[in-house]
Amino acid sequence: MSGSVSPLAPKTYADMPPVRGVRMATAAAGIKYKNRTDVLMMVFDRPAAVAGVFTRSKCPSAPVDFCRANLAHGVARAVVVNSGNANAFTGRKGRESTKMTAEAAAKAIGCAENEVFLASTGVIGEPLDATKFSGVLDGLAASGTEDFWFEAAKAIMTTDTYPKVATRTADLGGVTVRINGIAKGAGMIAPDMATMLSFVVTDADIPAPVLQSLLSAGVGPTFNAVTVDSDTSTSDTLMLFATGAVAGQAPVTADDASLDGFRTALNDLLRDLALQVVRDGEGARKMVEVTVEGAESDAAAKRIALSIANSPLVKTAVAGEDANWGRVVMAVGKSGEMADRDRLAIWFGDVRVAVDGERDPSYSEDATTAVMQKQDIPVRVEIGLGNGRATVWTCDLTKEYVEINGDYRS
Amino acid sequence: MSGSVSPLAPKTYADMPPVRGVRMATAAAGIKYKNRTDVLMMVFDRPAAVAGVFTRSKCPSAPVDFCRANLAHGVARAVVVNSGNANAFTGRKGRESTKMTAEAAAKAIGCAENEVFLASTGVIGEPLDATKFSGVLDGLAASGTEDFWFEAAKAIMTTDTYPKVATRTADLGGVTVRINGIAKGAGMIAPDMATMLSFVVTDADIPAPVLQSLLSAGVGPTFNAVTVDSDTSTSDTLMLFATGAVAGQAPVTADDASLDGFRTALNDLLRDLALQVVRDGEGARKMVEVTVEGAESDAAAKRIALSIANSPLVKTAVAGEDANWGRVVMAVGKSGEMADRDRLAIWFGDVRVAVDGERDPSYSEDATTAVMQKQDIPVRVEIGLGNGRATVWTCDLTKEYVEINGDYRS
Repeated sequence: MSGSVSPLAPKTYADMPPVRGVRMATAAAGIKYKNRTDVLMMVFDRPAAVAGVFTRSKCPSAPVDFCRANLAHGVARAVVVNSGNANAFTGRKGRESTKMTAEAAAKAIGCAENEVFLASTGVIGEPLDATKFSGVLDGLAASGTEDFWFEAAKAIMTTDTYPKVATRTADLGGVTVRINGIAKGAGMIAPDMATMLSFVVTDADIPAPVLQSLLSAGVGPTFNAVTVDSDTSTSDTLMLFATGAVAGQAPVTADDASLDGFRTALNDLLRDLALQVVRDGEGARKMVEVTVEGAESDAAAKRIALSIANSPLVKTAVAGEDANWGRVVMAVGKSGEMADRDRLAIWFGDVRVAVDGERDPSYSEDATTAVMQKQDIPVRVEIGLGNGRATVWTCDLTKEYVEINGDYRS
Repeated sequence: MSGSVSPLAPKTYADMPPVRGVRMATAAAGIKYKNRTDVLMMVFDRPAAVAGVFTRSKCPSAPVDFCRANLAHGVARAVVVNSGNANAFTGRKGRESTKMTAEAAAKAIGCAENEVFLASTGVIGEPLDATKFSGVLDGLAASGTEDFWFEAAKAIMTTDTYPKVATRTADLGGVTVRINGIAKGAGMIAPDMATMLSFVVTDADIPAPVLQSLLSAGVGPTFNAVTVDSDTSTSDTLMLFATGAVAGQAPVTADDASLDGFRTALNDLLRDLALQVVRDGEGARKMVEVTVEGAESDAAAKRIALSIANSPLVKTAVAGEDANWGRVVMAVGKSGEMADRDRLAIWFGDVRVAVDGERDPSYSEDATTAVMQKQDIPVRVEIGLGNGRATVWTCDLTKEYVEINGDYRS
């Protein structure tokens, strides 16, 4: 873990109220870190509906394989998460480790193994000794409390410098339901259909297929629109649970207009957590919001935006507070998407720096530098070819990123 | 320019003999740098055959547009290169600048404007004041000498810490011909069908279409197989000229077996120059050779190899001498190409670190660390699915890269 908190951290953390139907507990099992919690157990009082999206990596971790298999069952009773070891690329030992953990969790709370979901985060390729924490699960299952969200978020941190929490409410079926979420992630962040680790729980009563539809749609402009370093993790896991413990809610049968309020609140919460992840990007000093408009399609706009957001030269220029918009031109040009150099326009904040294929006639270095000196830097590119639009978020690339990642394992 | 020479620089530079039929001269025109040369003029005694490959950027520089248009003519009399300003994203002013330069060069040596080729390298988006160096072209045209290759390479440097030169000979049509080349490049290096700037001249007599065929084939496993930072320049230009000044060579009519010796020598020279570029990667302390075998196809292998070579987490681990092979697994997994986690094997140098989807049973941290402490680090990945194979080269990602690029324009 980094020694100091990111300067982009929230000034205050959300006050996290309980969500009916779920209890949590944490333990310090000494998997890798000293003097901190590294195991989280969530237990649902009754079977909860579950949805999930996972990394598109061709080399997923053992827990990702395990969760994918159990998701078909659509019911969750417990979640066990550890930090300090990703249990990724650990072969047969990795599968044995997930099996041992699931068995211990199922026994502790009296459920089937396929009602248990697992996630691990940390170093890749080191065998995970599940005996270290399978022994603590009985105690965690018994001691869980509803008012434990902040501690839960802390237990799953790796190189994160602050815990990531968010909460929302929504009107659904005649009642007010709550949605709470936690996330972790700071490096190896370029989610592709999922994210690092994030767990979201609502007390709403929503069937698993509807929940999955909401989550799959919600992840695109949120967790899949942030990037720290263009590196997609083997462990990306985002799960959404519905305990159904709210009283008096009218039944939900399909992902339709009756869910509008819930959908909006969920997407807002996912965006909140995703931005907290990017604001904790390893070594980050500045956040960059990249908006591309006028591309051939929304998908093309997103690829151009990610080409800009992942460019080491754009990110180092931001770190140096250098209004080097020529590198934005470069990143548009290399994206592979259609662009007409002579129609491009680029803004840093409200300052238009380039238009019609060249530097803006009224370009002011001072005005642009003033934008670069801020903590949050909006970059907007107008392609001038169509109506495609996308926004993605990233952070700057600093010497601290190099330092953190030059010596992560030790 | 960086203050100190890359530790990966060649211990000695090639002794560059003249190539018959071409003369060079340089000048210090003060385009951006002080106290150094920044304009190079190459003049061919007689019209030379010419071939070129250029950036695939959708936002190419004005000189790239200019060269592409002239290439159809197939004949070169002069090349003018400046450093310090890329004349990219400079709109109408950029086109006027190339036209003014070409006019001045054509007038100085008495040729047509479409027999002139231009290249510019440096900052993007700043208008290039061609009057600064169009005035020196008369003098350069008159003062060119054959024995000036090393000085030519120095004049085109930007953030390079050393000049890049290479020379080869080959048997062709009953005589020995010579091939000389120079290159520049240190950042914004991820060529896509071309490279930063490189100019190669032979005294062989080879028609332009054959020359183009040789160059287009040669660039794939050489300049298009190196990456410093995954950022493709707007200015990438690689040109090959054949003066035909060698005496007594039998005519060449097609790209066939009679050219085998020449082709081998040319490809070897291109590889030499490309590796010199990556060894001068901004802030580089180590070179990494990434070989991927057993992929579904050669193209798939190259995409996987580039995913590894462009991963900030792999590159920072190399900088930190950390044998973090889990990040290689990550980069294979995110490449989008077919991979079966449980068939993967990975070597650092001669040390197999992973096999059959997990850490090698005989893994030795000491042996692996010994590899990481070397200056040149071979990484090999066996995918286990087919016969596709590729090798690419990159460098580590250091704090110095961040420093150099956080303040490039000033």
